[in-house]
Amino acid sequence: MSVSIDQEDALVTSTDPLHPANLISELCASFYRLGWVTGTGGGICIRTDDKVYIAPSGVQKERIEPSHIFVLPYPQAEPSPHTDRIFLRRPKLNLKESACTPLFWNAFTVRNAGSCIHTHSQNAVMATLLWEKEKMFKISHQEMIKGVRIGGNGPTLSYLDTLEVPIINNTPNEEDLKDSMKEAMEQYPRAAGILVLRHGIYVWGDDWQKAKTQTECLDYLLEIGVKMKLAGLPTVLNE
Amino acid sequence: MSVSIDQEDALVTSTDPLHPANLISELCASFYRLGWVTGTGGGICIRTDDKVYIAPSGVQKERIEPSHIFVLPYPQAEPSPHTDRIFLRRPKLNLKESACTPLFWNAFTVRNAGSCIHTHSQNAVMATLLWEKEKMFKISHQEMIKGVRIGGNGPTLSYLDTLEVPIINNTPNEEDLKDSMKEAMEQYPRAAGILVLRHGIYVWGDDWQKAKTQTECLDYLLEIGVKMKLAGLPTVLNE
Amino acid sequence: MSVSIDQEDALVTSTDPLHPANLISELCASFYRLGWVTGTGGGICIRTDDKVYIAPSGVQKERIEPSHIFVLPYPQAEPSPHTDRIFLRRPKLNLKESACTPLFWNAFTVRNAGSCIHTHSQNAVMATLLWEKEKMFKISHQEMIKGVRIGGNGPTLSYLDTLEVPIINNTPNEEDLKDSMKEAMEQYPRAAGILVLRHGIYVWGDDWQKAKTQTECLDYLLEIGVKMKLAGLPTVLNE
Amino acid sequence: MSVSIDQEDALVTSTDPLHPANLISELCASFYRLGWVTGTGGGICIRTDDKVYIAPSGVQKERIEPSHIFVLPYPQAEPSPHTDRIFLRRPKLNLKESACTPLFWNAFTVRNAGSCIHTHSQNAVMATLLWEKEKMFKISHQEMIKGVRIGGNGPTLSYLDTLEVPIINNTPNEEDLKDSMKEAMEQYPRAAGILVLRHGIYVWGDDWQKAKTQTECLDYLLEIGVKMKLAGLPTVLNE
Repeated sequence: MSVSIDQEDALVTSTDPLHPANLISELCASFYRLGWVTGTGGGICIRTDDKVYIAPSGVQKERIEPSHIFVLPYPQAEPSPHTDRIFLRRPKLNLKESACTPLFWNAFTVRNAGSCIHTHSQNAVMATLLWEKEKMFKISHQEMIKGVRIGGNGPTLSYLDTLEVPIINNTPNEEDLKDSMKEAMEQYPRAAGILVLRHGIYVWGDDWQKAKTQTECLDYLLEIGVKMKLAGLPTVLNE
Repeated sequence: MSVSIDQEDALVTSTDPLHPANLISELCASFYRLGWVTGTGGGICIRTDDKVYIAPSGVQKERIEPSHIFVLPYPQAEPSPHTDRIFLRRPKLNLKESACTPLFWNAFTVRNAGSCIHTHSQNAVMATLLWEKEKMFKISHQEMIKGVRIGGNGPTLSYLDTLEVPIINNTPNEEDLKDSMKEAMEQYPRAAGILVLRHGIYVWGDDWQKAKTQTECLDYLLEIGVKMKLAGLPTVLNE
Repeated sequence: MSVSIDQEDALVTSTDPLHPANLISELCASFYRLGWVTGTGGGICIRTDDKVYIAPSGVQKERIEPSHIFVLPYPQAEPSPHTDRIFLRRPKLNLKESACTPLFWNAFTVRNAGSCIHTHSQNAVMATLLWEKEKMFKISHQEMIKGVRIGGNGPTLSYLDTLEVPIINNTPNEEDLKDSMKEAMEQYPRAAGILVLRHGIYVWGDDWQKAKTQTECLDYLLEIGVKMKLAGLPTVLNE
Repeated sequence: MSVSIDQEDALVTSTDPLHPANLISELCASFYRLGWVTGTGGGICIRTDDKVYIAPSGVQKERIEPSHIFVLPYPQAEPSPHTDRIFLRRPKLNLKESACTPLFWNAFTVRNAGSCIHTHSQNAVMATLLWEKEKMFKISHQEMIKGVRIGGNGPTLSYLDTLEVPIINNTPNEEDLKDSMKEAMEQYPRAAGILVLRHGIYVWGDDWQKAKTQTECLDYLLEIGVKMKLAGLPTVLNE
């Protein structure tokens, strides 16, 4: 890459509040207030045409600035023992790209997503514990199901559909979730997100608006599902 | 309608923060922070004299701008297989009016309301589940009952009144709630709102302030009612 | 009162953010975000030397403006069937002073308070329900007890003191709480606040800072007390 | 100390938002919104090289201004019956330094911390009650454990590590926690924080970012631990 420094900075510099570098900063601050990304966990990445914008790893998500954002070309080959991930721009600070990068990439390659969100929401974690045996969170007959899309990028579910979100096991290193997440996405092509046991959830969509809207709907459904389960109410009717 | 584009835009353009188009934007952002309208669900409409202001369907409610607002003349005949709804102004974006429009209209025609609010508050949904058999949420002897008006537009209830909010069944398409909501409003003329099973609540008032205030009171009462029920406390005394 | 309109407005007009009229607006908005004053309920009044500043009744507490504030001379005789309350300034809008006025006045006359806060916090209401039989909320061995003052205006309690907050019955009209609140304040001179069954709490202090701080401490203690009770933990040790 | 008044004020006056005096103000306001420092309790101190910045005692933590901050030289001998604590700057107001000062100092001397945070979070207090007998909060197999560092200043824990946070008894005077906190820190060198029964938690880190991040992770783990315990789920696997 022979791009000059100035050209690299231009990739994350814009007065448009809807520029991905500005959006990531703003949305991460908003997700922090929802309790989704405290303690540096979680985040959002955005892909536009041929570029992917990703936040750094291990930083306070509510204090990200556009200049902290990594930009990568898309598509690109998977990094391997012999090849590194390719970047169009790295922040000048001593930062590493988000550890979620390979998982966000799953959403791009498997579902052609334009954005992927990862939260550590306690609603998600409690749901993985309460539905641990079933390896699948299920809820039916909730209006908010209508805000979730088949596979995350298809038509929206109907009120009469049962929402199912697979739960995969957690791994000590976040990167190692890549294969099991991909397998779950392929095994459950209708799933709009993947829950990770004792960890959180990954949700994607065609663009950041659809990823965000679906994350809100799923988080709502996880929250009400947990409340219903603890109150002794069945979350699925007519099983 | 031969209104020019500029005249149409003028309908939603004002520096007055209390203009309906500005209020809808501001209040929806505020409702988002309360968890009432996440995932694009819920919202508020305002009627002033002969005009109705309504937000679009399926948009992030905390990011609505005045220019996104629809304006409709009031009164107007119900749309039918042979007639469309009439608009004074549609936003230039590729948007559809809120799916709640026919339900908001119920509040205008049945109760002469000046504003109607719809939330997906989890307090409302939990209440519909815990009072599902009775088809009626009931609570008595709570100070906040005094903030609710008989029929939503009459005098306020007394501390000695029992609050009753009917629960109607949900339907796969939001528009299809129109008739059952209207029936419930007519069958329970003292009700200040209508709960929808596994979905949320509709609340109205003479103006946006009264609709908002009553929505807050009802949401408070639904929240405390759910807490009381789960703690084994009766929500109605002297039954 | 022959004060001119301009002089009256001057009573609530200041660029100082700590002027009572500005503080009431700001603090009510902050209390709204805490869920203490939704649905127009609750509020704060401030007394400085010979003037009392009070918000209107029945208005959205998060939208109060300094120009909405009532100013009254202090001290003044109780209003009676033959005498009205005396005002130095009434807002020009069609507003009535807060229905809490006689209760705030109790705090001034019985405890010489400089400020009194009333909330409808659900923590307070749940506590009145869970301690209804005892007519007294009690908690011991909590660090936050140290933020509460004996009688609301004396020295702070010690960690080894048991906090006791009396619970009085609610009345259909808020004004009618005046006598029972006063009696409870006289019967329990160490109490820093008065809980009202199924309604909320009144808390006072030498100034607005002390009233606010104690309201926060008491609300915290009511919240943790309710959590402890529901978890089966005793709230008082060594009884 | 012959430092002139102007030089003293210069110690807390900066346009840099990351100056410790500005950060303490901003972070305390943020912690207030999280419910960590209501009722004047809790706070954060920051040490940079040879200076310690500390907020006053008994003030509203969300309203601290940089001019309220105390500055102390570091290191300095422990105050004793014969020596006072040494200050580079005291605010002109009638304020005393935070009662947490000796406890924050523990973090500096025992763990060489650059920042220490104290919260009264209800998650912490509920955890001390539910794990009171064990005198140790324990949780395993939670992703957020990875955000906590061994001893608060070492490498981060692994997902396979069990998090352990000791619980010490509370004392009537906060200063008197100094010795038992120090003992617990020495007895449990891997602990990243110290819980205080019926009171709250102390957490530290190499700098304010690491202290804050770890406080968020620990608070998250305390919250989910309490939820799990109340739902009958074990918080430690493979014991």
